[in-house]
Amino acid sequence: MNNFVKICMVGAGRVGKQHSGSLTSSVRACQVVAIVDPLVDVLTATADEFGIPERYTSLAEAIERSQFDAVVIATPTPTHRPLAVTAAQAGKHIFLEKPMALTLADCDLILKAVQENGVLFQIGYMRRFDPDFMAAYQRIQAGEIGQPMMIKTLTHGPGLPPLWARDPATGGGVLAEVNSHDWDSLRWLMGANLERVYTEVANFKGKALNIDYPFFYDNVMVNLRFENGALGSLDGICPCEYEYDARVEIIGEKGLLQIGELKGQTIVVATNRQQGMLTPVFRTWAERFRWGYINEMRHFVECVSKGETPRVGGEDGRWAVAGYLAGTKSYREERPVYLKEILQTG
Amino acid sequence: MNNFVKICMVGAGRVGKQHSGSLTSSVRACQVVAIVDPLVDVLTATADEFGIPERYTSLAEAIERSQFDAVVIATPTPTHRPLAVTAAQAGKHIFLEKPMALTLADCDLILKAVQENGVLFQIGYMRRFDPDFMAAYQRIQAGEIGQPMMIKTLTHGPGLPPLWARDPATGGGVLAEVNSHDWDSLRWLMGANLERVYTEVANFKGKALNIDYPFFYDNVMVNLRFENGALGSLDGICPCEYEYDARVEIIGEKGLLQIGELKGQTIVVATNRQQGMLTPVFRTWAERFRWGYINEMRHFVECVSKGETPRVGGEDGRWAVAGYLAGTKSYREERPVYLKEILQTG
Amino acid sequence: MNNFVKICMVGAGRVGKQHSGSLTSSVRACQVVAIVDPLVDVLTATADEFGIPERYTSLAEAIERSQFDAVVIATPTPTHRPLAVTAAQAGKHIFLEKPMALTLADCDLILKAVQENGVLFQIGYMRRFDPDFMAAYQRIQAGEIGQPMMIKTLTHGPGLPPLWARDPATGGGVLAEVNSHDWDSLRWLMGANLERVYTEVANFKGKALNIDYPFFYDNVMVNLRFENGALGSLDGICPCEYEYDARVEIIGEKGLLQIGELKGQTIVVATNRQQGMLTPVFRTWAERFRWGYINEMRHFVECVSKGETPRVGGEDGRWAVAGYLAGTKSYREERPVYLKEILQTG
Amino acid sequence: MNNFVKICMVGAGRVGKQHSGSLTSSVRACQVVAIVDPLVDVLTATADEFGIPERYTSLAEAIERSQFDAVVIATPTPTHRPLAVTAAQAGKHIFLEKPMALTLADCDLILKAVQENGVLFQIGYMRRFDPDFMAAYQRIQAGEIGQPMMIKTLTHGPGLPPLWARDPATGGGVLAEVNSHDWDSLRWLMGANLERVYTEVANFKGKALNIDYPFFYDNVMVNLRFENGALGSLDGICPCEYEYDARVEIIGEKGLLQIGELKGQTIVVATNRQQGMLTPVFRTWAERFRWGYINEMRHFVECVSKGETPRVGGEDGRWAVAGYLAGTKSYREERPVYLKEILQTG
Repeated sequence: MNNFVKICMVGAGRVGKQHSGSLTSSVRACQVVAIVDPLVDVLTATADEFGIPERYTSLAEAIERSQFDAVVIATPTPTHRPLAVTAAQAGKHIFLEKPMALTLADCDLILKAVQENGVLFQIGYMRRFDPDFMAAYQRIQAGEIGQPMMIKTLTHGPGLPPLWARDPATGGGVLAEVNSHDWDSLRWLMGANLERVYTEVANFKGKALNIDYPFFYDNVMVNLRFENGALGSLDGICPCEYEYDARVEIIGEKGLLQIGELKGQTIVVATNRQQGMLTPVFRTWAERFRWGYINEMRHFVECVSKGETPRVGGEDGRWAVAGYLAGTKSYREERPVYLKEILQTG
Repeated sequence: MNNFVKICMVGAGRVGKQHSGSLTSSVRACQVVAIVDPLVDVLTATADEFGIPERYTSLAEAIERSQFDAVVIATPTPTHRPLAVTAAQAGKHIFLEKPMALTLADCDLILKAVQENGVLFQIGYMRRFDPDFMAAYQRIQAGEIGQPMMIKTLTHGPGLPPLWARDPATGGGVLAEVNSHDWDSLRWLMGANLERVYTEVANFKGKALNIDYPFFYDNVMVNLRFENGALGSLDGICPCEYEYDARVEIIGEKGLLQIGELKGQTIVVATNRQQGMLTPVFRTWAERFRWGYINEMRHFVECVSKGETPRVGGEDGRWAVAGYLAGTKSYREERPVYLKEILQTG
Repeated sequence: MNNFVKICMVGAGRVGKQHSGSLTSSVRACQVVAIVDPLVDVLTATADEFGIPERYTSLAEAIERSQFDAVVIATPTPTHRPLAVTAAQAGKHIFLEKPMALTLADCDLILKAVQENGVLFQIGYMRRFDPDFMAAYQRIQAGEIGQPMMIKTLTHGPGLPPLWARDPATGGGVLAEVNSHDWDSLRWLMGANLERVYTEVANFKGKALNIDYPFFYDNVMVNLRFENGALGSLDGICPCEYEYDARVEIIGEKGLLQIGELKGQTIVVATNRQQGMLTPVFRTWAERFRWGYINEMRHFVECVSKGETPRVGGEDGRWAVAGYLAGTKSYREERPVYLKEILQTG
Repeated sequence: MNNFVKICMVGAGRVGKQHSGSLTSSVRACQVVAIVDPLVDVLTATADEFGIPERYTSLAEAIERSQFDAVVIATPTPTHRPLAVTAAQAGKHIFLEKPMALTLADCDLILKAVQENGVLFQIGYMRRFDPDFMAAYQRIQAGEIGQPMMIKTLTHGPGLPPLWARDPATGGGVLAEVNSHDWDSLRWLMGANLERVYTEVANFKGKALNIDYPFFYDNVMVNLRFENGALGSLDGICPCEYEYDARVEIIGEKGLLQIGELKGQTIVVATNRQQGMLTPVFRTWAERFRWGYINEMRHFVECVSKGETPRVGGEDGRWAVAGYLAGTKSYREERPVYLKEILQTG
């Protein structure tokens, strides 16, 4: 078993557990040999749950003492740049959770370290590995709906995000965190880059939740214009209690394509004709994208094993960050913002 | 407005009201001039609701005193034969509710009176006028699913049927009343007659409802074999509280066709991700077959107006009665029963 | 039958036929006594089809020679103001197709004539009479989804609109004609007025169709902000060949509500497992809103008969026009436009 | 890694590959150390594909030369009894594909060997491990639909089964092979044993396929009566080209529960409003029951690892064989057959 890919998991929280589960249960020819988290309790619990032998409180320590080929970074966004750069400089291949960073400058520092050290780099856009998104992509590529004219993509998530994610000082709010996948999917599915965006935000629940950051919002609607003239919308709501809801609709010159649905199980229960019938929905992102999370890890391990470039990388991650930055600038300045404004400044 | 078709409604109850509503609101070139019911309160209420000018307590009286072209008979099954024969002998065209009768002998007496008096005769199989059933029929006829091999048809209805319907002495139980439409639909859609049937029944709620007729059942499952070798099932449940549920599934040599669904409105409400999403269902037969009820009346009025033969008539009604009789004989004798046993005896 | 509401149909084209069909087949206590159209062939054909006795080539002539209580105006938008004012001045109650007009000035002239002459006025927003939209409205009012935070509404229509409708000189393009219902629905369902809008448009098929009006577009995406802080999107595509598609999704503080679906019949056909299953869709607006068209006419006739105010009137029509004007101004000036800019100028 | 469960795969064909894939990709703490198949080409291909080091042409040889804890038997039904008995006598834990055998005598010999040698035994009813079936089972157990009154279960499969499966001399036809899962599911979900069955079969495609076994059929419909009075139907079609179709519907005293649907991906494509919209379906059993196949292997490995009894075992497998035997006897003798007739003879 010498050709196993040895992985160090960085981050033992919710997402780190998700990836540890995928790697230990559903990916062949790999082993999670080490795990890193500054919170010792969390570190120990996750390491024990997935049988990860080595435990460290910093990536530097893990690099020094352990042997591994690659890192999976599943930590809060503000830590992405330092961790990724450290890993790259140590020659470790990198799987980095979305969003890549909160600024284009940080994205560029990561990209530079990756290139200089010749490591492989994959960004955690697991929707690209979801069987339905993949099938839809292939249908669009095959021309089934003709030239795409309009895309509508949404992510609505239950549960208030963690403090660092919702405070604009340390995270980028809903547009950066919750809608991160949408920024990537719309570019991937449409095969075009954004030209300009216009954003409106609303704050409906902040008061009840005692949130008083400036710029806090829980609803966001972005109007999209692509460089090739196509249009679209991206919307986010968080927290919303009805479902983890992620759907996309694309209309091309020849027709419509939908990805995703509200239904989360193929079960229907009807017991009261006044009430109607009940269908389970997706309660969490883990339920909705079960295969996406497994498949992206399988892809990463296979790329590392074969020395191949992952099919979603730094350039994709950087574009998604640019989208969120443009969207954010738009609602703050109450005007349409061109991506080139961001890309030139960034 | 002399070319209006003048109609006498016979029966002012639930079904009589349904047809009166269709005729007065949704059918042109006709008028309900009279209505008959032995229960004066019901008679007056329905007549007032739909603005029907003449009210009688017997069909004989209506025939004697009023002028009309046709009757719509919407009364309990045991009264069908005497009322239809009376109407035919008076030269009135007849729309008769399903089931045609409870015996083949009664069917034959009705058919004889209809033929001898040269009146038009339509039986109330409104599913043949439901847009979805009609479209399905046309697809089958067009060969879309190839030679039909199997049909599954069901009707599950909320609410205990009226006393006369559920007592086998005066009605035929679920197989005769609730599943009457299924007996007709299966023959129409499959384009074949039944060869033999095997029936099982169950009584789950009778005790709680204090029903102690011999042979009472609230669940029935019939196994079907057609003369051309095709197979099928027909099932009925009444009372069931979850919906008025009427669906058909047909598989042919080339594929599958489904008619109907549980969903009763194109509305979805999701407010609780643990519970799932809610979709309204059909609460009543009137909701489910809104257009079927309107269209069958439009067809009848048009046939009367033009002197054309309705597209669902006495022979169809008689076959459905034969089906129910065979199904009933089967569960009582605990063996498969051939239709020819019924048709020869009948 | 003296209490019949007597109606003069103005416009014998596609929509005039739709309303004539509803009135003659599905509305009691009314009669279409006259019909007006300048095109004699069209006039005669429609009058014959629905048995309308009197035919005129101008409304003025009809008013002079015929006796009727009300007009149903189903003509190109630029004719709405003169026809409605003429009818009002003659004391006729008015049902006017959407959009009410192309300018707020015209709306105001209509409203003034209606008020001065004391006639009833209903605008043709039939979605308010669609059973699903009505049920959804009631659920929102009942608080099922809590305070609405976001609405997404769309209309995509097959077939290039008539020349007058798509030329911005005589019609208002997709935003005015195709999305007219959306402008009304979003205000009705959200229970709030728009504050500002931002619009992007695209022209994908114009070149192939040899359309070279300035400002022609076939795709439009509008970002919405309501006075109460709620957000939304409205999008239109015309022509699109995949369906007549009209759906709404609303998310409130407590959950989500969807109205409408792609499915147009409760039929599924599966014959090829590589291809998948086929479900019929709505081919036309008449198929999708069958009951909406009937119910709005029933409502109008009932209001006229009882002297009651219709539940969707001139103020609603005027707001929808203001929405389309703001949306149009936005894409032309490439900036968010406040409704108050329109309302003050208008 | 000494606590890995070591497995010998018996059968390198379609199902053997499915299980090898699950075990090597998606189950932790196990290793497929050996594989057995008499066909050397198939053996080598599958062993290479999944990196299985040891290859043998007989189970006896594998037992003699290799070290493993358990066997997974995925071979034609007629070989089940000798292989399972050989494995049990060698002290190997057993996962045996469905159906358990073609006779109750063979089932009993397997059960005897299993008991005498104290090995664990799991039968391949993977529907019990499908997330939707599991959730449905829990809802029924929780009383959501009340006492179950009726079940309808079906399996329709594309592709003609292999020769041994469709020849009644070596396999049991559709009822034994295709519907094997239904016989198990109906007992599991209803929580009751069958009392009697009545079966009709049809042969629509045999002639075109040049199949002339006596008793060949490609359509079967079974009427079910449970010991507790509940009713049901079970139907099978094979080959059918439209989908791998497996659905269940249960109605209890309080309401309805559906498991499964035709839709195989959450994708909709609409490009032609005359044709309607297209939704992908399940093309194969592997697509439909992806998680069921993984989960049943996880369960087996965990049971072996912990020495626990699998939750679907020999008694369940035997009841399903009894069901198929009763169903087969019924259509051959054209009468309802009691399970006790089979169980006493068997």
